[in-house]
Amino acid sequence: MDTRHHVVIVGGGFGGLHAAQSLKGAPVRVTLLDRRNFHLFQPLLYQVATGALSPADIASPLRGILKRQENTQVLLAEVIDIDVRRRRVILSDGDVGYDTLIVAAGAGHHYFGNDRWEKLAPGLKTIEDATEIRRRILLAFEVAERESDHKRREAWLTFVVVGAGPTGVELAGALAEIANDTLRRDFRAIDPADAKIVLLEGYDRVLPPYPPELSRKAEAELRRLGVTVRTSAIVTDIEPGMVTVRAGDRHESIPARTVLWAAGVQASPLSRILASATGAPLDSVGRVAVEPDLSLPGHQEIFVIGDMAHADDQTGTSLPGVAQVAMQQGRYVATLIRHRLLGQTMPAFRYRNYGSMATIGRAAAVADLSWIRVSGYFAWLTWLLVHLINLVEYENRVLVLIQWMWNYVTRNRSARLITGENPLPFRH
Amino acid sequence: MDTRHHVVIVGGGFGGLHAAQSLKGAPVRVTLLDRRNFHLFQPLLYQVATGALSPADIASPLRGILKRQENTQVLLAEVIDIDVRRRRVILSDGDVGYDTLIVAAGAGHHYFGNDRWEKLAPGLKTIEDATEIRRRILLAFEVAERESDHKRREAWLTFVVVGAGPTGVELAGALAEIANDTLRRDFRAIDPADAKIVLLEGYDRVLPPYPPELSRKAEAELRRLGVTVRTSAIVTDIEPGMVTVRAGDRHESIPARTVLWAAGVQASPLSRILASATGAPLDSVGRVAVEPDLSLPGHQEIFVIGDMAHADDQTGTSLPGVAQVAMQQGRYVATLIRHRLLGQTMPAFRYRNYGSMATIGRAAAVADLSWIRVSGYFAWLTWLLVHLINLVEYENRVLVLIQWMWNYVTRNRSARLITGENPLPFRH
Repeated sequence: MDTRHHVVIVGGGFGGLHAAQSLKGAPVRVTLLDRRNFHLFQPLLYQVATGALSPADIASPLRGILKRQENTQVLLAEVIDIDVRRRRVILSDGDVGYDTLIVAAGAGHHYFGNDRWEKLAPGLKTIEDATEIRRRILLAFEVAERESDHKRREAWLTFVVVGAGPTGVELAGALAEIANDTLRRDFRAIDPADAKIVLLEGYDRVLPPYPPELSRKAEAELRRLGVTVRTSAIVTDIEPGMVTVRAGDRHESIPARTVLWAAGVQASPLSRILASATGAPLDSVGRVAVEPDLSLPGHQEIFVIGDMAHADDQTGTSLPGVAQVAMQQGRYVATLIRHRLLGQTMPAFRYRNYGSMATIGRAAAVADLSWIRVSGYFAWLTWLLVHLINLVEYENRVLVLIQWMWNYVTRNRSARLITGENPLPFRH
Repeated sequence: MDTRHHVVIVGGGFGGLHAAQSLKGAPVRVTLLDRRNFHLFQPLLYQVATGALSPADIASPLRGILKRQENTQVLLAEVIDIDVRRRRVILSDGDVGYDTLIVAAGAGHHYFGNDRWEKLAPGLKTIEDATEIRRRILLAFEVAERESDHKRREAWLTFVVVGAGPTGVELAGALAEIANDTLRRDFRAIDPADAKIVLLEGYDRVLPPYPPELSRKAEAELRRLGVTVRTSAIVTDIEPGMVTVRAGDRHESIPARTVLWAAGVQASPLSRILASATGAPLDSVGRVAVEPDLSLPGHQEIFVIGDMAHADDQTGTSLPGVAQVAMQQGRYVATLIRHRLLGQTMPAFRYRNYGSMATIGRAAAVADLSWIRVSGYFAWLTWLLVHLINLVEYENRVLVLIQWMWNYVTRNRSARLITGENPLPFRH
């Protein structure tokens, strides 16, 4: 019987994985639970969705990452409940007791109450989302090539991206590149460059969390690529082949066969379970409000980190749902547990913001670093470097680098596969 | 209106693609129909199924390959019928007329009348087959890690491969490597090396089409890797968790959660349509018997090539369903069409056999080349080289080479992803 302090971590994303790695060699037994067998590097998921990279390039098997960490066991399991009183995590097929629990189950899409939009406008959170979006983008061009009716063809060649945060901006930029460069000369009946890419944003500028100066630069760059940017535009309805938008008092319908969702996220349902068990409040996107040390009120033994946690920075602003926050929180909680086992205390969690960035197609990006704001080629190089460095496996870094160089030189995206068992959409 | 002679090719596999490429610059208009948007390099599919390569590494978009071939249009379409009399190919959503038709629709799995085995023992023909097999292999180890019952755990750690042709031998060898090397140290409750890999073959030796001397070497190599090789063993039943085998008079049941099918193939259903329309006979695996020039009897304007065609070599032996045959046939038919348009004739198709080979795990292979029979390290290097050279895209050659080198040095297989929307199999 293993009598060491048992730390159970739910979720192998940025938060959970960094917590687990920071517990290497600690006098604890760690169990990492995830329903997927890999850590996914979500910031590059849009490149899988647009055929530039393969899923395995940005996904690393959790067992492989942690194989040399003797005190850690990875279990493929689905967490459905947490019994806070008896200190047990309830799985779909069993349960696991814990001494300390770290919940880092992330977030999913949020359709603001319009759940039927989900089928029509897939979001981008999982590998399956990415290959489905890739499938829809490529199929749209294929159907357009065979469509003789002008109006219908135009709808197949219209791509609407809802939401102009980093993911939406990156998707729209990549779509423009596919239409203008990648598919050039691929078709005989259509010109892919005729495709219309529409980026819709409810706020009055793209990249709302960024400084206005960078939003302006990003928008100019998107327009240069041929993207139609519509700010202050609220999606009021999505039907098959049609998106309805309200801008001010005007309603407008955009005929479009491909709609991608990059607008809203909502914390994992586990946050609701934790909130009702502990009395911790939830914010408007379902995140649990945590204490300054990221524990739950009245439950020092439960920590919530990453996209599921509502934590404030020093100025009282809530921290954004980005990888940097989750990674720092994971490392903080691991250190806190080590201290606590030695009877020591720790100051509250402090987020160090190293900046944020977004890439907009070929050789263009914007970056808001803590010491400088840049855009253009230098920002793009920075973006490439930061993302390469943060990939977990050496092999992936090499493979991604080669594919990026290849794409840059040839303007090709070789992972343009239409896969999946879904039927072809040819009978309209 | 385009009045050029219209060549329609059904299928973008080895036969169809090489026919299309050989018609580059010919005074014809070419339409290549495929229900997939990519050419798949099937000989390496087992490496996708075993997590060594990503799907996009061995799949090349057909449009990309043919983009600079002005006289050729690629259409994503599903062929459901062929109207031989009116010279039209019937699609699921329209039809296309032809002057000359090349049918190269390949082959699918064949379960010898036991179609319910298909769900229990998937075969390996498509990208989706490969990711499903990868999913089953990796999940079996995951479930075993969480299974406390000894017998049930053993069944999860038993992998049965049915059929010891090149695909079955390569799958079994790769499975042994996964168990012995790749997953070493990945688990805490099980030792992956305890996995049992059983290779079943109905004939009295593995690789039945190869010279007996190479079969013996391949079998010795498989045994060295820990594979249980059972020849003269006929599968009589497959149920969930159990494979029943007859060897001589004895029946034996093997408890196994993962069963892979590498035993039988059957020509595309289009062969039956062609046979009944033209009176051409079908052989026992559904291939159409073709004339010496690969046309259908009485229909000089229809050619059948590749895995769908039953053609004999100079000695009267029927040609095997391998890439070499299909490629040579595709090029032959393209040349014949060029000649015919000039009023010239061509001698009958002659197959040049450059040899066959199979790899058996790390640094081991057997090769039966026309001028030499080799096994071991040299055969393995030859195998690597031949397969690299035959990949269509330069980028894929580089990516595959890097991953092979990486695997060779680290014994890792980084594409170990469990993907797909199917539920986890934890409730037995």
